[in-house]
Amino acid sequence: MNPLYSTYPVHIENSLTGAKEQLVPVSEGRIGMYVCGPTVYSDVHLGNARTFTSFDFIFRYLSHLGYKVRYVRNITDAGHLENDADEGEDKIAKKARLEQLEPMEIVQRYTVDFHKVMDRLGALPPSIEPTATGHIVEQIEMTQAIIDKGWAYESNGSVYFDVDAYNRDGGDYGVLSGRKMDELQSGSRALDGQEEKRNPADFALWKKASPAHIMRWPSPWSVGFPGWHLECSAMSTKYLGEEFDIHGGGMDLKFPHHECEIAQNTATSGKKGAKYWLHANMLTLNGKRMSKSTGNTILPGELFSGNNPLLAKGFRPSVVRFFMMQAHYSSVLDFSNEALLAAEKGHDKLLAAWSKLQGLEASGSGDFDLQAWIDKCYQSLSDNFNSPILIAHLFEAIKLINQNEGSIALSASDLSVFKEKMNAFVFDILGLQMEEGGSAHSEALDKAMDLVIELRAKARENKDWGTADLIRDQLSAAGIKLKDGAEGTSYEI
Amino acid sequence: MNPLYSTYPVHIENSLTGAKEQLVPVSEGRIGMYVCGPTVYSDVHLGNARTFTSFDFIFRYLSHLGYKVRYVRNITDAGHLENDADEGEDKIAKKARLEQLEPMEIVQRYTVDFHKVMDRLGALPPSIEPTATGHIVEQIEMTQAIIDKGWAYESNGSVYFDVDAYNRDGGDYGVLSGRKMDELQSGSRALDGQEEKRNPADFALWKKASPAHIMRWPSPWSVGFPGWHLECSAMSTKYLGEEFDIHGGGMDLKFPHHECEIAQNTATSGKKGAKYWLHANMLTLNGKRMSKSTGNTILPGELFSGNNPLLAKGFRPSVVRFFMMQAHYSSVLDFSNEALLAAEKGHDKLLAAWSKLQGLEASGSGDFDLQAWIDKCYQSLSDNFNSPILIAHLFEAIKLINQNEGSIALSASDLSVFKEKMNAFVFDILGLQMEEGGSAHSEALDKAMDLVIELRAKARENKDWGTADLIRDQLSAAGIKLKDGAEGTSYEI
Repeated sequence: MNPLYSTYPVHIENSLTGAKEQLVPVSEGRIGMYVCGPTVYSDVHLGNARTFTSFDFIFRYLSHLGYKVRYVRNITDAGHLENDADEGEDKIAKKARLEQLEPMEIVQRYTVDFHKVMDRLGALPPSIEPTATGHIVEQIEMTQAIIDKGWAYESNGSVYFDVDAYNRDGGDYGVLSGRKMDELQSGSRALDGQEEKRNPADFALWKKASPAHIMRWPSPWSVGFPGWHLECSAMSTKYLGEEFDIHGGGMDLKFPHHECEIAQNTATSGKKGAKYWLHANMLTLNGKRMSKSTGNTILPGELFSGNNPLLAKGFRPSVVRFFMMQAHYSSVLDFSNEALLAAEKGHDKLLAAWSKLQGLEASGSGDFDLQAWIDKCYQSLSDNFNSPILIAHLFEAIKLINQNEGSIALSASDLSVFKEKMNAFVFDILGLQMEEGGSAHSEALDKAMDLVIELRAKARENKDWGTADLIRDQLSAAGIKLKDGAEGTSYEI
Repeated sequence: MNPLYSTYPVHIENSLTGAKEQLVPVSEGRIGMYVCGPTVYSDVHLGNARTFTSFDFIFRYLSHLGYKVRYVRNITDAGHLENDADEGEDKIAKKARLEQLEPMEIVQRYTVDFHKVMDRLGALPPSIEPTATGHIVEQIEMTQAIIDKGWAYESNGSVYFDVDAYNRDGGDYGVLSGRKMDELQSGSRALDGQEEKRNPADFALWKKASPAHIMRWPSPWSVGFPGWHLECSAMSTKYLGEEFDIHGGGMDLKFPHHECEIAQNTATSGKKGAKYWLHANMLTLNGKRMSKSTGNTILPGELFSGNNPLLAKGFRPSVVRFFMMQAHYSSVLDFSNEALLAAEKGHDKLLAAWSKLQGLEASGSGDFDLQAWIDKCYQSLSDNFNSPILIAHLFEAIKLINQNEGSIALSASDLSVFKEKMNAFVFDILGLQMEEGGSAHSEALDKAMDLVIELRAKARENKDWGTADLIRDQLSAAGIKLKDGAEGTSYEI
């Protein structure tokens, strides 16, 4: 049998070319995908959580199609300076200083939190999760290789990528972002240490550590630390090869981070790294940019708990994921209480239909064209991972499921295929989660107890003391306490 | 107020001296603790899970006493060779070869699993969790430092620690294990590559990689990889200093791993690393050594699920933890179905008493000497972390709790202290977990549904069709289905 990926070939909007292109893997049947992970110095931002959820969905879909996917998502635990440029304090070291901890204690705390949030959002762990500090040797080697080619220079113990020299020799710095060299040079801010650079557009491959900088390693140039852009070049090519398939990240990383990666990769090996560059879009909150200073901000954990003044209630992680999947990864997504409430309804309707489907019997063929529906679903996914269109198709399927009570207008063999595909689309690919047994049981318990309370009231009304006593004794043995109050009877365990 | 650690000073059985000694931290009020973590090439062994649970308990207790604890537990993701000596294949690389994966994919899979198992067992994440591959630079530096002192030599691209030279210059290789040099030399097996060593007791600091070895880094001596023993010396001293407080690990690591660590540390800095060396003991299964080949083996996940022919049922992770805590960390612990069933009873009795305590009212002082009880509990913990004795004291407290129905023979202020201490001992220190809401709700639902089913049977018997219909309709609206079968009525959601 042909693998699904040949039946439904994937097309990707490639940021590098601006065109939608067919995905042709470097190595038949295999996909190498690299996604820039979080800098672990604070709680993961909702925007980042969305980006990683988008690429989890892409990872899931490519795996489902039959590709053997190696998905590498890094942890930035050093080298990311405050202003995202080449000056300022290391973000992690600064947090460590403020909290009087070893930087690696900060890294550990926020890595653990990050994993928890992504796990709740139903994101699978990547295949490899390398760290910047775990690849100092590789970064030093890459820096040396670029110096050897003549496209980087040492200045006062730091090493900078020489953008002018690289472009003079045929390099194409600006190829991803479309920025021109003259804009880049005039647009650069005057920052401390810029005097070390030959050109304001140059960027650091290695930085000499100031005496106060605690995260430091020996190198041929100074005791220092690698530049932020370098780690992703070193780790992606180490685990995926000089040329691999997909490189993803948030839109904000397109420039300068990914532009610099491409330049570093090309300078080292003549290859850009990834063939296809994908960028997940930003999110807004109530129509405005998220911003801590104005209070227009929300953390993933607050979304789940409802513990934020902008929210009326908490939302289950699977609902949040469904909400994210309702937008295309490359579109801006606006979070609001209302939009989440609407997503919750849609999510629950979809999962209720799925549950109902499990108990339906095949009542013979109707006019639902199953194969056409399956094709449409796959085609939407293979068309640049269009999750909102897939969800629209799933809602057509809900209509079919809800048409009759105990049966569905499909042949027995079609029903079995339909169940299998619904399962794949809803759980394996979109990554939604049925509520854990716990929550389903809590709800059922609420309802069962409503019934018990009503039966007790009825028994009392009828002076049926035998039944009333039976209820009292059995509940007490079960550790359930009834509380009669002004607003009726409630229970607690 | 004095910190608890001055009221109840901790005494530790120190493997290095063989004596029980008072814990005097290197830095007042702070503890640095290093524990050798797992080699992530397979599911975590139950024995390792026990070791890490023991040190989690010690970490929790020291933190509770008011120490600021930095707890470092590493991940061995390279350099651990098959026979634990200096030859054979890298354990992770071998698994990667067998499964046709990149070694770091093996590392990621088993690191994720390891974290899940430890999380279920109620173990807190350590403060820092460094990896061997993340500290290649530091290991190369340490190797160079030992060569510079004259206690290591290069041979054919590999570097070995020179045990004879080190001991001749006043070193004390054998100090931890008590082994004598002559035993060590005659006891060594003749392995490939031993001819590179001057002395069979010498051990590798750096190994030149064979062409087939895929995990490799450049070094002054060869492209290769660090020796297994070296990573713990490099990482413990990097994050805790040349001299720190506690070094822990399983008994099987005492020799050669910890012996070599002490030699490496001393050779580098003149200090042994930790002042106190602690060793958690092994476990047996049904009285015999665990062994895959005889089938006398069990994984933590199988303990939880019951999915192992040696088990009658699964055990909640908190029950497994309680079972482990019933033995002292330095004693051999025998796992068996019967012992786990007994532990389950004890665990549930303890947690039921704790739940009951929350609802009790103070009925004035009785003859329970609260302060004496608190002192006994702390003293048992401070006496080399004696968890079984603590548990015995907790069972005395259960008697007090269960003496009367709605009240307890304590003054109101004592009751509040008692609750606080019970909470600390049971949850903060022993690390037990109440069942999640989910399970409690499932149980309550079972019991509420038993009641509903009984009421329905009664209604039918009495031809009370109104009640029978009410029950049927409300259950159906709640999504609960009753199933009448030969063995009575059951329900499903």
